Formats: sequence, C-alpha cells, structure tokens
Amino acid sequence: MAHIELRNNLPGIRGLMAYRPDTAKHLNALAEALLHNDNNSLSKGERELIGAYVSYLNNCFFCQNVHGAMAQYYLNCNMEDIDAIKIDFTTSENISPKMKSLLAIAEAVQIGGSYVTPELIFNACSEGATDEEIHDTVLIASAFCMFNRYVDGLNTWAPQDRQGYINRAPQRAKDGYAEANIYQ
Amino acid sequence: MAHIELRNNLPGIRGLMAYRPDTAKHLNALAEALLHNDNNSLSKGERELIGAYVSYLNNCFFCQNVHGAMAQYYLNCNMEDIDAIKIDFTTSENISPKMKSLLAIAEAVQIGGSYVTPELIFNACSEGATDEEIHDTVLIASAFCMFNRYVDGLNTWAPQDRQGYINRAPQRAKDGYAEANIYQ
Repeated sequence: MAHIELRNNLPGIRGLMAYRPDTAKHLNALAEALLHNDNNSLSKGERELIGAYVSYLNNCFFCQNVHGAMAQYYLNCNMEDIDAIKIDFTTSENISPKMKSLLAIAEAVQIGGSYVTPELIFNACSEGATDEEIHDTVLIASAFCMFNRYVDGLNTWAPQDRQGYINRAPQRAKDGYAEANIYQ
Repeated sequence: MAHIELRNNLPGIRGLMAYRPDTAKHLNALAEALLHNDNNSLSKGERELIGAYVSYLNNCFFCQNVHGAMAQYYLNCNMEDIDAIKIDFTTSENISPKMKSLLAIAEAVQIGGSYVTPELIFNACSEGATDEEIHDTVLIASAFCMFNRYVDGLNTWAPQDRQGYINRAPQRAKDGYAEANIYQ
C-alpha cells in the first residue's frame, strides 16, 4: 500500500502521475525526450537499457521491469538477456563495446555524479561515443535515480508477473510517454 | 572543465541546459512546478530548503548554494542558518517540527526510495503534514538526486564565491525557473 492515499489503483509511477498531473506532465515530457524521441544516435533500445540497468542498481522492481521489457522489445531479445546484462554487462555478447562503456558511466552516476571519472569518459570516447551520447547517458541515468526514488519512496505497488510488462511493451513503444497514454 | 564540450561558459546546470535545450525545457518546467508554483501549502522557502539539503547530502556544491541561497532569501535568514540546518536540522530553532519530519523523509529518499519507512511517514502525519506535502517532499528530494548527478556527473564548474549565489537569489525568486530566464 502506498504511503499516501493516491485515490486510484494504478501501479508504480502511473498511480503517482494520476495523483499529481501538474508534475506528471513534465516527468512524462522528459521521459519522451530522453527515451522515445527519434532524433538520437543512441537507439531506443539502448536508452531503455540504460534506464533498466540503473533501475536494477536502485533495486526498483517496477521501473526495471517496465524499461527492461521496453529494452528487450526494441533490441529483439528476451528478458533473460536483459537480466544477464543487468547482472554483468561486461561479458555480454549482445551489446557493443561502446554500449558497455556507456553502461559503465551510468553505473557510476547511480552511485553519485562525482564517480564519473575522466577515465570512464576517455574509454567511452575511445569506443566511439559522442559528447551527445555521453550527455544523454548521464541524464538518463540521473533521471532514473529520480524516477526510482519517486516510485519506491512513496511505496507504490507493482505487478509481480513479469510477463505483463512484456505484454505491454509493444503498445508503449507505439504510444511513447506522451501524457495522454501514460495512465492506461 | 566539463567532461564534454558544452560550447558555452555557463556554470552548473545552466551550461548543460544551454547545451541541450530539448531536455532543459522539461527540467525547468519540473523545477518551476515543484519549487516556484504558488499553489502549494509548503512555502517556497521550505521547498528550496529540501532541495538545498538533498544537494548537500549529495555533495553538489553548485546546487546546494543555488538553492541554499534561495532558501535563505525566502526564509529571511542567512546562509549560516541554512548551513546549520544542513549539518543538523534536528536541533534547529528556525524550522518547524513538521519541516523537520519532512527533511527526515528527504534524507531517506537521498539514500534510496525504500529507506522511507512507515515510521517516517507516521511521524510527518503526526506533525501535521498532508499527503500532498509528503508527495512533494519525496518528489523534490528525488528530483534533486537527478539534478545533482546531472551537474556533477558531467563535471560542470561552479563559482566558488558563495556571495554570488546570494546576490542572484532575489532576481531568481522573481523570475522563477521559466526557460527564458535560466541561461542569464
């Protein structure tokens, strides 16, 4: 049960967004710009994977399954592959060396901003990451440190059946994070 | 020097926002809704204090001084009073028992969402905090866990003279966080 009376039965961040639409519209717009906008050299699957990985590190069940399901949908793999990346991305054969260098940056951001070292940046640049990609990796990882705390700090409920998250992914990929679709 | 080439010399989050306006507008709109909107039973000073405190816990020099300066301006005190609250809010005579109970929630959020216990919520309710105030405390604290990581994760520079932050506060209080004013 959530720590406050949400006056709805929606799970995770969707219940919070329905409770407080005045802030929800900006959170949704941020998610849309970072994760769903086509104008980005990181693929949607790569961006969702960063969000799923940070949510895993923050131990947020709802977010890591929502965004893990999005990542497996876009990347044409399955949840077991995403789980394996979350546990140890360094040995995965499903992601590029550049993506590994960006996940290493995201991992540092999750601990704290100052943990992003020049060495991590140098490594990402060496693997071909652009400044824009490094920027977006840091901001996506930072944003999930917000979303995860928002979801768990108010003790929202989350469906435990992971298949439900997988089933929702294709429609979410089509709709994106636009406000009108988020409460469905 | 920032980890990426920002093509501007603005400090802190302002340099990042000028670099990436497509995400800046949503971050600014979120800050405006949480910190500057008049329609809130928490005062602007109380909301800025939550942001300054979380930024202190995250050791983000830029954010804790920007928002500490805003807090001292709104609360009619000085930076030394804000510093004392950051170091130990429990013994401060400048803030209410309700505000202390909300800062305790913010402190838990900074560690992680699951650290917000039913006891912390019960205590805040006992001090008269409403569900809306608890919600906004959790979201403000969560948002600063994003802003702080964004600012430090990309290694932006921050003016070291704290008086400069104090000097800017009255104009920022007037302008708010609307996009058109943030780069000045």
